[in-house]
Amino acid sequence: MRTTHPFVVDSADSDKFHEECGIFGVYGHPDAAAHTALGLHALQHRGQEASGIVSYDGEHFHAHRALGQVGDNFSSESVIGSLRGHAAIGHNRYATTGGTLMRNVQPLFADFDFGGFAVCHNGNLTNAYQLRRQLVRRGSIFQSTTDTEVFVHLMAFSRGGDVLDRLVEALRQVEGAYTLVALAKECVIGVRDPLGVRPLVLGRIDAPGGKPGHVLTSETCALDIIGAEFVRDVEPGEMVVLTDEGVRSYHPFRKARSRFCVFEYIYFARPDSVLEGVSVYEARRQIGMELAREAPVEADVIIPVPDSGVPASIGYAAESGIPFELGIIRNHYVGRTFIEPTDRIRHLGVRLKHNANRSLIAGKRVVLVDDSIVRGTTSQKIVQMVRQAGASEVHLRISSPPTAHPCFYGIDTPEEGELLAHKHTVDGMAERIGVDSLAFITIDGLYRAMGKPGRNPLQPQFCDACFTGDYPTELPDRDEAVKQPELSFLAERTAFGRERRVRRG
Amino acid sequence: MRTTHPFVVDSADSDKFHEECGIFGVYGHPDAAAHTALGLHALQHRGQEASGIVSYDGEHFHAHRALGQVGDNFSSESVIGSLRGHAAIGHNRYATTGGTLMRNVQPLFADFDFGGFAVCHNGNLTNAYQLRRQLVRRGSIFQSTTDTEVFVHLMAFSRGGDVLDRLVEALRQVEGAYTLVALAKECVIGVRDPLGVRPLVLGRIDAPGGKPGHVLTSETCALDIIGAEFVRDVEPGEMVVLTDEGVRSYHPFRKARSRFCVFEYIYFARPDSVLEGVSVYEARRQIGMELAREAPVEADVIIPVPDSGVPASIGYAAESGIPFELGIIRNHYVGRTFIEPTDRIRHLGVRLKHNANRSLIAGKRVVLVDDSIVRGTTSQKIVQMVRQAGASEVHLRISSPPTAHPCFYGIDTPEEGELLAHKHTVDGMAERIGVDSLAFITIDGLYRAMGKPGRNPLQPQFCDACFTGDYPTELPDRDEAVKQPELSFLAERTAFGRERRVRRG
Amino acid sequence: MRTTHPFVVDSADSDKFHEECGIFGVYGHPDAAAHTALGLHALQHRGQEASGIVSYDGEHFHAHRALGQVGDNFSSESVIGSLRGHAAIGHNRYATTGGTLMRNVQPLFADFDFGGFAVCHNGNLTNAYQLRRQLVRRGSIFQSTTDTEVFVHLMAFSRGGDVLDRLVEALRQVEGAYTLVALAKECVIGVRDPLGVRPLVLGRIDAPGGKPGHVLTSETCALDIIGAEFVRDVEPGEMVVLTDEGVRSYHPFRKARSRFCVFEYIYFARPDSVLEGVSVYEARRQIGMELAREAPVEADVIIPVPDSGVPASIGYAAESGIPFELGIIRNHYVGRTFIEPTDRIRHLGVRLKHNANRSLIAGKRVVLVDDSIVRGTTSQKIVQMVRQAGASEVHLRISSPPTAHPCFYGIDTPEEGELLAHKHTVDGMAERIGVDSLAFITIDGLYRAMGKPGRNPLQPQFCDACFTGDYPTELPDRDEAVKQPELSFLAERTAFGRERRVRRG
Amino acid sequence: MRTTHPFVVDSADSDKFHEECGIFGVYGHPDAAAHTALGLHALQHRGQEASGIVSYDGEHFHAHRALGQVGDNFSSESVIGSLRGHAAIGHNRYATTGGTLMRNVQPLFADFDFGGFAVCHNGNLTNAYQLRRQLVRRGSIFQSTTDTEVFVHLMAFSRGGDVLDRLVEALRQVEGAYTLVALAKECVIGVRDPLGVRPLVLGRIDAPGGKPGHVLTSETCALDIIGAEFVRDVEPGEMVVLTDEGVRSYHPFRKARSRFCVFEYIYFARPDSVLEGVSVYEARRQIGMELAREAPVEADVIIPVPDSGVPASIGYAAESGIPFELGIIRNHYVGRTFIEPTDRIRHLGVRLKHNANRSLIAGKRVVLVDDSIVRGTTSQKIVQMVRQAGASEVHLRISSPPTAHPCFYGIDTPEEGELLAHKHTVDGMAERIGVDSLAFITIDGLYRAMGKPGRNPLQPQFCDACFTGDYPTELPDRDEAVKQPELSFLAERTAFGRERRVRRG
Repeated sequence: MRTTHPFVVDSADSDKFHEECGIFGVYGHPDAAAHTALGLHALQHRGQEASGIVSYDGEHFHAHRALGQVGDNFSSESVIGSLRGHAAIGHNRYATTGGTLMRNVQPLFADFDFGGFAVCHNGNLTNAYQLRRQLVRRGSIFQSTTDTEVFVHLMAFSRGGDVLDRLVEALRQVEGAYTLVALAKECVIGVRDPLGVRPLVLGRIDAPGGKPGHVLTSETCALDIIGAEFVRDVEPGEMVVLTDEGVRSYHPFRKARSRFCVFEYIYFARPDSVLEGVSVYEARRQIGMELAREAPVEADVIIPVPDSGVPASIGYAAESGIPFELGIIRNHYVGRTFIEPTDRIRHLGVRLKHNANRSLIAGKRVVLVDDSIVRGTTSQKIVQMVRQAGASEVHLRISSPPTAHPCFYGIDTPEEGELLAHKHTVDGMAERIGVDSLAFITIDGLYRAMGKPGRNPLQPQFCDACFTGDYPTELPDRDEAVKQPELSFLAERTAFGRERRVRRG
Repeated sequence: MRTTHPFVVDSADSDKFHEECGIFGVYGHPDAAAHTALGLHALQHRGQEASGIVSYDGEHFHAHRALGQVGDNFSSESVIGSLRGHAAIGHNRYATTGGTLMRNVQPLFADFDFGGFAVCHNGNLTNAYQLRRQLVRRGSIFQSTTDTEVFVHLMAFSRGGDVLDRLVEALRQVEGAYTLVALAKECVIGVRDPLGVRPLVLGRIDAPGGKPGHVLTSETCALDIIGAEFVRDVEPGEMVVLTDEGVRSYHPFRKARSRFCVFEYIYFARPDSVLEGVSVYEARRQIGMELAREAPVEADVIIPVPDSGVPASIGYAAESGIPFELGIIRNHYVGRTFIEPTDRIRHLGVRLKHNANRSLIAGKRVVLVDDSIVRGTTSQKIVQMVRQAGASEVHLRISSPPTAHPCFYGIDTPEEGELLAHKHTVDGMAERIGVDSLAFITIDGLYRAMGKPGRNPLQPQFCDACFTGDYPTELPDRDEAVKQPELSFLAERTAFGRERRVRRG
Repeated sequence: MRTTHPFVVDSADSDKFHEECGIFGVYGHPDAAAHTALGLHALQHRGQEASGIVSYDGEHFHAHRALGQVGDNFSSESVIGSLRGHAAIGHNRYATTGGTLMRNVQPLFADFDFGGFAVCHNGNLTNAYQLRRQLVRRGSIFQSTTDTEVFVHLMAFSRGGDVLDRLVEALRQVEGAYTLVALAKECVIGVRDPLGVRPLVLGRIDAPGGKPGHVLTSETCALDIIGAEFVRDVEPGEMVVLTDEGVRSYHPFRKARSRFCVFEYIYFARPDSVLEGVSVYEARRQIGMELAREAPVEADVIIPVPDSGVPASIGYAAESGIPFELGIIRNHYVGRTFIEPTDRIRHLGVRLKHNANRSLIAGKRVVLVDDSIVRGTTSQKIVQMVRQAGASEVHLRISSPPTAHPCFYGIDTPEEGELLAHKHTVDGMAERIGVDSLAFITIDGLYRAMGKPGRNPLQPQFCDACFTGDYPTELPDRDEAVKQPELSFLAERTAFGRERRVRRG
Repeated sequence: MRTTHPFVVDSADSDKFHEECGIFGVYGHPDAAAHTALGLHALQHRGQEASGIVSYDGEHFHAHRALGQVGDNFSSESVIGSLRGHAAIGHNRYATTGGTLMRNVQPLFADFDFGGFAVCHNGNLTNAYQLRRQLVRRGSIFQSTTDTEVFVHLMAFSRGGDVLDRLVEALRQVEGAYTLVALAKECVIGVRDPLGVRPLVLGRIDAPGGKPGHVLTSETCALDIIGAEFVRDVEPGEMVVLTDEGVRSYHPFRKARSRFCVFEYIYFARPDSVLEGVSVYEARRQIGMELAREAPVEADVIIPVPDSGVPASIGYAAESGIPFELGIIRNHYVGRTFIEPTDRIRHLGVRLKHNANRSLIAGKRVVLVDDSIVRGTTSQKIVQMVRQAGASEVHLRISSPPTAHPCFYGIDTPEEGELLAHKHTVDGMAERIGVDSLAFITIDGLYRAMGKPGRNPLQPQFCDACFTGDYPTELPDRDEAVKQPELSFLAERTAFGRERRVRRG
């Protein structure tokens, strides 16, 4: 699910790639909505702009959707109490397409002749724009500007039998990346696209009465928070259906080679999650160690750019033998709404979130470890801050290869032209950022750290298109792959403030 | 447009029939949205639960919709300033069907392949429920629970040519009462159903540059507030199209005899409006005079039940020669949200809004004049209050015939069984209300006061079904005529509080 | 209690004098706060900017104060339920001095060594400014900018014995007009200043258990709303104390001749109230009759400027024999926040609230009856509107003498220089307003209508200073009589929006 | 400044001691308020319940105070823009005394005869309760329930000359701990009590025009965020005055031995601050190293309880040679408002904030490092979580001595009886918490880590009363030392929700 450049975000995080969504579904537990809220809270890093939950109580569906964080909107007894039922699905949204319109907040729901249906989507459909045009011509009236709404209109026109048949018929028409969790009257459904670009795991949870409930969610950390047991990853191309009878599995698509997004390990996923059998923390630590081997440097102290650089830093420090210290302190209180108030203090921006620990840095040769460089603006400010704190040398080590290509599969990336690695060599980047040395892990080093013998150029084991430009699906019309629908309505003002439709490209 | 039993309303007004909507559209003025806001403010009596405006600036549509009154939501420069354009339509909603769901607030809008389209509806479609079922089976996904949404889905499936053709094709499939104002890229459209049950007037407004703009709205009082000149009533069955070229008129429906709602004169419309050539104030005054002739009584003072009873009282007083005095004071500050706080003071309810002017009443023979009796609960409380203030006799005169039948054409009326006149004779009603005498104007007296020779029983000159049960359209399935769609979703919590879906019958 | 020029008010009411406060207290009823809320609702016309209630439950005091109307802030069970106790006082504020600062909202409360004390004030202290300066020099720290806070600091420094002694000691030091209702641990106290400028009535209310409770409030309409029985007016210079033992009365001040504000009858009080033995409605009706005798005119119709002009119009019509009709319709939905959105439609201002009933006016000789002319701006617009509706002649009759002098006793009046009657003769006023004739009731006519033989120039029976300039108290320093304290703090932003300190003079 | 048990806080942080306030003042910079907001943001860890800023523009004072975090309330241009002037002070509040009453939010301000005065307080006055009683008897009316208000009433009654004289006269009457920043017309004033219990640092900031401005604030991290240069710590017993002439220093109190709070190093202060010449991060790291020497254990991995345990863990790991890993992941999105929704999932509490990184823990001997044990409830849950993640052994090391005594100097500590260390031996604590071994640093080890030869029992170099019960000031009446004033008012409801007065002890 996609959108572009939403709310003002603080200077540091605005210079990252952004995961666009976290999804969660549970079937067979009387606290379905409460567990969904907790699961979404554990997945908050995958989307902070808005959240929604839809539950089903055997007779009616119940919904609550809101802009803002899960803890602010789904923590009260009155909200959770109103989301009755034994089945629920939920979604965290980082708005890439569709702007911050309230009606884009997922789950989307639709009333079919067979009953209600709600759906959450993580990914991006690269042919959504074309499909939407065809659907409108056939009589569909779209209410949102998300690519996700294409699913429900395709289902509405489907002549298939039950909800599963209609969903499959719809899925066969879409291209791109999608991991879905959907809720219908008798079931919760989970689907991963044939390439399995985005993650989806299956868990089991004890429920009163003895029969266990089941959970489908983006990451294992959302199982941990509710005390659910990890069962297995949902396979690429698999459709899993949770009902009163337990778990059924379908493989409605042609078999394909998995291309899981390697950036999930580098930055997006939580370090305490285990995806496709690999611990995210351990992967980052291994990447840090590999990076120390590939790009060693003589220095006094290893300092992570917090928080995402910490595990790779620990690996780098362990491998290099140079001490690891928290030389940059992150202020976790900073909201995303803190605006630098006047021109005279605009340069202070980065310090809202980060401060150099001068006593650790002064006079030292410092190795900073970070996970990626996007536009490079934040790296530049952090390096400057570290130099002002008295570092004698500053070396920057990056635990990913240079990110030179945009993502079309559900990650918010800037235009190619804004990517520092698209415009500059590593030396040019080092100069702009102002470091004594700069090194990225190599693409093969990355694969080695992930336990592979190296990248298989014919059949890469991961989706690494942002590094290599090697996209795992055809993109016949690259301009339309992340294009927003041509809405007649520019915007609607709501009680939440002005809804903005923002355009990409 | 319909719904049932919305917010808690105060004791007095909750015992009235309720007009369900006021509509307004303007084409050809740079302050289109500001004039629409003023027009909706003048039409606030036709719906207080929610309002919305959609404007078009030649390139994009802009919308703002909100629960609450016009003055609270559409008075700020930021709201009006965002509703750019030379054309706009707006709607006040008294929610009868569709509950208080935010997504039911009109104008509804849809993105067709030919572009955006927004529509406001005053009335009720008696076959909406059946049409909706068919449309869902064909692939429509409804977003609201209003009957109005049927129009846009019928248009989406229409294979007609331009927007006018498609609208007419849709209108030919609906039954019931509808007065519409719609906004498309090049025009504002007004339509009255062939019976002309609800009012619609055409006005002209000076605009900068010399070419006048045009206005379509429910009542002339909405022309007065913006200084627009009344041109004429839109005819029953007429479609009027406002464009840059001025006003075009179409008659796409088979000719029918007009059946304008007589209750508009009795209670719904504002006394300063002129509808179908008749002043509402003057009509009420004439009804009061006729009532004095039909049901005279020896008394000391004529006292209106404020505010709606005042013009008929003045007529009754003028005809009878008994002095007219404000013996009941109405507190206009009372919000609709004042809840009687404890059981011990529940009986004080009516006094939140009304207080007897004891010095005028004590020892007097009082004639109370009111416009209608619905459930009779408020009448009973007011009579009791007047007796406690020392009246020696209380006579009640009602400026409408007994309301014994529900309305299916856009007025919120209780179930038949709740109507006092459905269950009791006039004597029985007098006893329950506790008056010394009770009289209603006769149906023929009402027609005489309206300037007719009497009611033509074969071709009644008005819709008077709430008095006579003589409905002007066939109601093949009376249960479904005001039925709500079977939504799978019970409700959604929003920032506005819990959206409620309320059921009728 | 005073302030100046608060929120933007709508065009019509902004051209009136404004009553500044309504007060209410009850002792001996378990629903003390609920009754206080209802009483304040009935007194809403005396102040709409803010309200507050303080209750006492035998152990603790409880408070709720809020900007906005009573029905919006004191209608919920959670608010009323939190205001526990058998005794409560409340206040409606029309902010004349002290701006719209939240901390100025009454009741004010203070913690003395003898316990808590809360107080509400209707009136204005003409030496508050001087007293404040002295108190600050002695060590008082003021928290509000109201004159009312002077009472509590005078009490804090008092060396008197119990709360009554200390209150009397404080009252002996103040000058001007004050009607107070106060709440201490064992009692509710009511006081009128020796001249009795502002009203205060005593009532009795049935309470569970058999022992009646007692009520002190500004007008009898606040007794009616809670079903309380009127006992008597509190006398000028009297202090009434409500306790478990019932009602005690004290006369701690030197005897003076009563000077009740005659404008309470003309405009401020509600028509259903009875003050000092005289029905307000009947007084207005008599004034209208007297005005018809003093200033007759040949005409076709008598039209009130609604709502305040209605009773005098009825009197004028009855005396003159010319028919009374509602020729101007008032839209009660207009909030005080409706801003005219653009310059092009600014001239429409008056129509937000008033519309001429053209069918009644066209071709007629019209007598408009209104209660007063302040700046004259609204009168001018209404006359213009009536002329545009086709009146052949417009005559204006005013049910008060010309208001040529400011009030220093708790009424918000413009600077002298802004009063139309201060700058112009009656003929000049007629010309500016654009009427064919203009007449005010004479000062002696007013006294006659009030049942007096005429005005006693040596000992006027009322305070009529706004007409005569004959102020009932000495005003040694007229500049300071309504002056605001010199606050170091200009303003504080709050959750309610910016608090404004507004200056007068 | 003190209060007790405020809002519901999440499970983890509710089991910590809490710093009660952060203060900031700046003189001589046109962006005084913007810098103050940034400074308060950097000090957010010292108080999250409420914040306030008062500025002075040479003519008027301006104020904004709000419940909630700095970034939410002081980030908009409209707020900062309204706080005009070259001088400002600000305060973050963790409400220990005075409940969450809005009127307790600091800075407090008062209008003296010499002009306005605003003050912020970090600390606690142990004789505030007695002084308040005396002041009320003399005629003071308190508006808040904070001990801080005592300062301004003492000043109001002072007969001293200028503002400095009056402040000193007031300070000489108070006992306990206080660090103040105050704002008067010509100056910003900073004071530390003679023992210097709470920190205060002086900084210099470049300002347009060349003349530098000066800053007074709790910690150096608040200098860093605005790019100010650290000048020196304010000395115990020193009063520093910032004016147009620069910095003046006074020593108005008798000389005493400094007793700086050692817990500031252990937990309260930010790790990037330098207090009294010692880096907080380095202090924690040294404590961790000392702890490793005092309480070694054979283990596979050192895991901090994030975030406060990290620096000591790094020290412990460095000294012990055991690898440091992030075995517990902290979810920084958790708000303090997330309520566990139903009983069935209450046990999940701790996981809202913490999750064990199973892949790092399973089968390992784990050393957890935390900074303190208060009630022990969170430690117990975290240990359980680590065991469930498969740890073979769990050893807990605490970087402070056992906290067995309450604080009376501005830290929120539970009643003595609730402190786990007050009721149990270390062995008993280990058993309750469920660890294989538990060790605290010794009091002498702590002093050694701080660079002292050990604790001087006659003249301890720090305030360590929470460990030793050796209070640096006399506490004649321990019950009253943190007692709240006896308010008659229990509470006031406000727009912010119910204000609560909460009692301690």
